[in-house]
Amino acid sequence: MSAVIQKIDHLGIAVKSIEAALPYYEKTLGMKCGHVEEVPSQKVRTAFFACGEVHLELLEPTDPESPIAKFLETRGEGIHHIAFATSDITGQLAQAKASGARLLHEVPIDGAGGKLVAFLHPKSSFGVLTEFCQPKSEADSSGCCCKH
Amino acid sequence: MSAVIQKIDHLGIAVKSIEAALPYYEKTLGMKCGHVEEVPSQKVRTAFFACGEVHLELLEPTDPESPIAKFLETRGEGIHHIAFATSDITGQLAQAKASGARLLHEVPIDGAGGKLVAFLHPKSSFGVLTEFCQPKSEADSSGCCCKH
Repeated sequence: MSAVIQKIDHLGIAVKSIEAALPYYEKTLGMKCGHVEEVPSQKVRTAFFACGEVHLELLEPTDPESPIAKFLETRGEGIHHIAFATSDITGQLAQAKASGARLLHEVPIDGAGGKLVAFLHPKSSFGVLTEFCQPKSEADSSGCCCKH
Repeated sequence: MSAVIQKIDHLGIAVKSIEAALPYYEKTLGMKCGHVEEVPSQKVRTAFFACGEVHLELLEPTDPESPIAKFLETRGEGIHHIAFATSDITGQLAQAKASGARLLHEVPIDGAGGKLVAFLHPKSSFGVLTEFCQPKSEADSSGCCCKH
């Protein structure tokens, strides 16, 4: 069975300050913030908004060395990455590599929310920083996780 | 009834060449291109890919004066805009304006695919060029279209 992208899981949006951006998402767009969470490994605070089957994930740097701080310096606020939910993250990476894409992760790593994640380099994805993700429980049961 | 954002309708992605980007979307990601269409009013060619409930819309400029050509000059390839499907585009614009957002369109205009569309300015939407859209048929039947 080949890897299939099922949907957009989330969009990562870089902001200087979640506090400053919240009124825009809550009042202008009328969305509800699910939760705010700090992710020390990525040096970011995140705020989640459900929008249909997709989540919007605001990303605020908590350290000048955060990748998001560097993105803000060079690009300013805006969409940082797109994450696709896949039925088989290992197969998805193999398919991407075979087609010539440059991988930032050769094997999936642990991400937030009990998911395995892996990124493609934006230089081989036409300017869109691209993440694949799959719940660990699914990857384990399909026998397709990175432990093989 | 207040305006409600139902889902992400599509993501607009600026590319220099649809022909060059197609193998990435078709082979690396494994998506199927729905159709390619030229939109003379926007001076772009577009290619659509269904991804769950969202469409990815590649945008290639057909003229140096296209807004997409200008985006590519200053930002390079990447995500250009996010379009939210709303239950009431006129109400959504009123809500956005009341909350202090800057509107690029005070009233919705005709967009592709039989939809009414309107944009917010990215300076008031934290760097994300934001579109609202609603099928014309829905807007007509709710009595909330721009003809009022």
